[in-house]
Amino acid sequence: MPKRSEDYSAWYNELVKRADLAENSPVRGSMVIKPYGFSIWEKMQSALDNMFKETGHTNAYFPLFIPKSYLSREADHVEGFAKECAVVTHYRLKNSGDGRGVIVDPEAKLEEELIVRPTSETVIWSTYKNWIQSYRDLPLLINQWANVVRWEMRTRLFLRTSEFLWQEGHTAHETKKEAEEETIRMLNVYANFAEKFMATPVLKGVKTTSERFAGAVDTYCIEALMQDGKALQAGTSHFLGQNFAKAFDVKFATRDGGLDYVWGTSWGASTRLIGGLIMSHSDDFGLILPPKLAPLQVIIVPIIKDKEQLNEIAEKVDPILKSLKDKGISAKLDDRDTHKPGWKFAEYELKGVPVRLAMGPRDLENGTIEIARRDTLEKQVINLDETVNKIEKLLVKIQESIFQKALKFRSEMTTEVSNYDEFKEVLDSKGGFIKAHWDGTPETEEKIKEETKATIRCILLNEPDETGKCIYSGKESKRKVVFARAY
Amino acid sequence: MPKRSEDYSAWYNELVKRADLAENSPVRGSMVIKPYGFSIWEKMQSALDNMFKETGHTNAYFPLFIPKSYLSREADHVEGFAKECAVVTHYRLKNSGDGRGVIVDPEAKLEEELIVRPTSETVIWSTYKNWIQSYRDLPLLINQWANVVRWEMRTRLFLRTSEFLWQEGHTAHETKKEAEEETIRMLNVYANFAEKFMATPVLKGVKTTSERFAGAVDTYCIEALMQDGKALQAGTSHFLGQNFAKAFDVKFATRDGGLDYVWGTSWGASTRLIGGLIMSHSDDFGLILPPKLAPLQVIIVPIIKDKEQLNEIAEKVDPILKSLKDKGISAKLDDRDTHKPGWKFAEYELKGVPVRLAMGPRDLENGTIEIARRDTLEKQVINLDETVNKIEKLLVKIQESIFQKALKFRSEMTTEVSNYDEFKEVLDSKGGFIKAHWDGTPETEEKIKEETKATIRCILLNEPDETGKCIYSGKESKRKVVFARAY
Repeated sequence: MPKRSEDYSAWYNELVKRADLAENSPVRGSMVIKPYGFSIWEKMQSALDNMFKETGHTNAYFPLFIPKSYLSREADHVEGFAKECAVVTHYRLKNSGDGRGVIVDPEAKLEEELIVRPTSETVIWSTYKNWIQSYRDLPLLINQWANVVRWEMRTRLFLRTSEFLWQEGHTAHETKKEAEEETIRMLNVYANFAEKFMATPVLKGVKTTSERFAGAVDTYCIEALMQDGKALQAGTSHFLGQNFAKAFDVKFATRDGGLDYVWGTSWGASTRLIGGLIMSHSDDFGLILPPKLAPLQVIIVPIIKDKEQLNEIAEKVDPILKSLKDKGISAKLDDRDTHKPGWKFAEYELKGVPVRLAMGPRDLENGTIEIARRDTLEKQVINLDETVNKIEKLLVKIQESIFQKALKFRSEMTTEVSNYDEFKEVLDSKGGFIKAHWDGTPETEEKIKEETKATIRCILLNEPDETGKCIYSGKESKRKVVFARAY
Repeated sequence: MPKRSEDYSAWYNELVKRADLAENSPVRGSMVIKPYGFSIWEKMQSALDNMFKETGHTNAYFPLFIPKSYLSREADHVEGFAKECAVVTHYRLKNSGDGRGVIVDPEAKLEEELIVRPTSETVIWSTYKNWIQSYRDLPLLINQWANVVRWEMRTRLFLRTSEFLWQEGHTAHETKKEAEEETIRMLNVYANFAEKFMATPVLKGVKTTSERFAGAVDTYCIEALMQDGKALQAGTSHFLGQNFAKAFDVKFATRDGGLDYVWGTSWGASTRLIGGLIMSHSDDFGLILPPKLAPLQVIIVPIIKDKEQLNEIAEKVDPILKSLKDKGISAKLDDRDTHKPGWKFAEYELKGVPVRLAMGPRDLENGTIEIARRDTLEKQVINLDETVNKIEKLLVKIQESIFQKALKFRSEMTTEVSNYDEFKEVLDSKGGFIKAHWDGTPETEEKIKEETKATIRCILLNEPDETGKCIYSGKESKRKVVFARAY
């Protein structure tokens, strides 16, 4: 496998394949998420879904297809998505007649083309129009888990694919304040998920105008830092103002007897998170997964000469497995005789199983077992009867430890600069997040992007204002913003 | 609401809407699954997913789009699906230039059209080719939860929509025997799910040639009987033989050093099950849901004059709610003061909440509570301290009771006939399942379908052969088969 220090990009691609997470499909730009990769997504889904439900949201399902005219109703929205739309124009195939298979039946042309949803604001707000009459119908707090398609020319597994899986929340509110609160609430849900489950520290901020979601008033985001010093946007939460309510004429009877447009939000996170998870923690031996998202948390590898020894070990290990199961910890004994222990060790390191136990003849004699943690590769021989207790503590410790490691890395990789030369120097030599003054104009932002490929990742929330001079234009700046090269 | 006895079809449509299960979307043929309807689907998904995992399957995700040429590789398969395919031909929109919005960019035409998956055998078997080299890679036991599209001209919510949600299992095996066993295993999983969770009795059988899945060697199915005497196919499990392995050249090194094509199965169940659930049990007052699939199992309605009484009731009810939650029973106190108890009673009857508790001032005095079951509408006043115990037992009882009721109905609605006149007479006067001799030819099957709209639902499994004369042709018949008009 390529080393991270030599070719980070090749290391990532190879790890995704070797660890059986995903592969490119025969359909250009689409991926196949393999069972092991998908089981990580299931863990993510389950954790996020719980958090959405705890904050009062319910799931629903809206159509895959969007009439072309709907997409055009909100001017910025169509501008942002038109260039990457998959378009359904026909609804039937027929025999080609020349024995060469099937062709599209020209007589089955749709009157109005259908767009495969790139996001669902338009179809959802057209539905909300019928669901909302009065303030009593608000707030409406709905999420959907779905596939979406955004045609991409250059794709990378998990990070950028034409079809991807995600969730999209779409909420409707009585007041601007409530909608803004919801936007921030869901931003915080994403941040908590990233930090508590993925063990990935994130910055919370708001996007500049040019990086804003097409149709939003404000786009908030969480930004994570990958090991190669590039940033990854890991979730976004949009305050839509009344834009989509106006585009789809969604009005409600207010408490004081008036009529007003509804206030909206939308927020989403996708299978891209799996890419972020891999690049946050993993090493040259393979994946390092946080215990809370690992499909398998504990693996037991027997080191044996014969079947009889295996039976003895299985007998010793059985109560440990039962006890772990009762505690909700997933664990397995790898009793295959088709692979050697060394092969198995490498395999589970590759797959990022957080805790590995190994037991051999000497352990059987001594009543001991070897316990190894994946993140640090540290090993220790312990008494068999303390195994469960030790594992329980170790899983908590690993979860915290890889978060702290990532946090320390981010802290080291965050640099404040005061001029453009320094900015370029840090960007090229070190990378990471760079805090710098910016004059607030899209022109400057665009120039810096053109010249350095760095973009403004976000304007941090809850940071005090601090006046200064823009590193590019020298003009007045109200505060520093966070730049980085990004995925 | 229309009565079932007057217009079953209108009753169904109206119930789906009023109970907030689903509605037609602006996109022709597609539905919006509303939060309450979707929460039933989530319960179904969770139960089925557990059953799939218990039988050794894992989830994965394959692309939404299928290259047109893939669909054509298996001759029967393309024949079966070509007429109902949504086709993506372009990947970009552009400004129309005349200020009238966007048009499809003619320069962004795909070289090869993409089909929105109507089912995923082709794209999955094209992937399996790379995953399977040797018998050691088998069996491959994979399921996916996904949306699929089959263009439909006449649609009905849940029962027949252009886009629907489903799961599709796709497995690959070393031997014919193993693949056949898998086919039957999954048929039994569906039957158990239908009977134990949906409380809907089903027949298990095999389809005739003309009703077989396009590309399968054999299609097994479960068939349920709706209250109007029509049948509903509720799940299918296909033995694919080596058809798709041959079409996609999926060979494996056998145990004895040879090379052979892989044996396959596929099996699916969809959001159609929700339609079946509704039509199995519900009545003129609304839904009747089996407790195991009810989004909310217990509702408590306070009957009060003022806020103070509400507080007293809330205090009494609180430990009951806690205790139910600990037992995994979902329950809620409806403390809204915006609606009267009578309105609430009707609402929860409409929504099919299995158990309703009501508590008023007299109950407060006497330490009692009224408990009502949705299925029979029976009410009873019990001592407050036996509430939890009573609910626990009642939920089990209701689940069993609605199954028994449906079983009794099916038994009464199953008729054996010995000639065609009798067949037509029973079909028109009574409906239901009709067992009759059939000569085994597609011609006879087609004639009967043309003349009566009845189809052969299945040839029952595990029924002894019984020779006789075909009701239509008078020719020799080896066994009776099950006819019905169907959804």
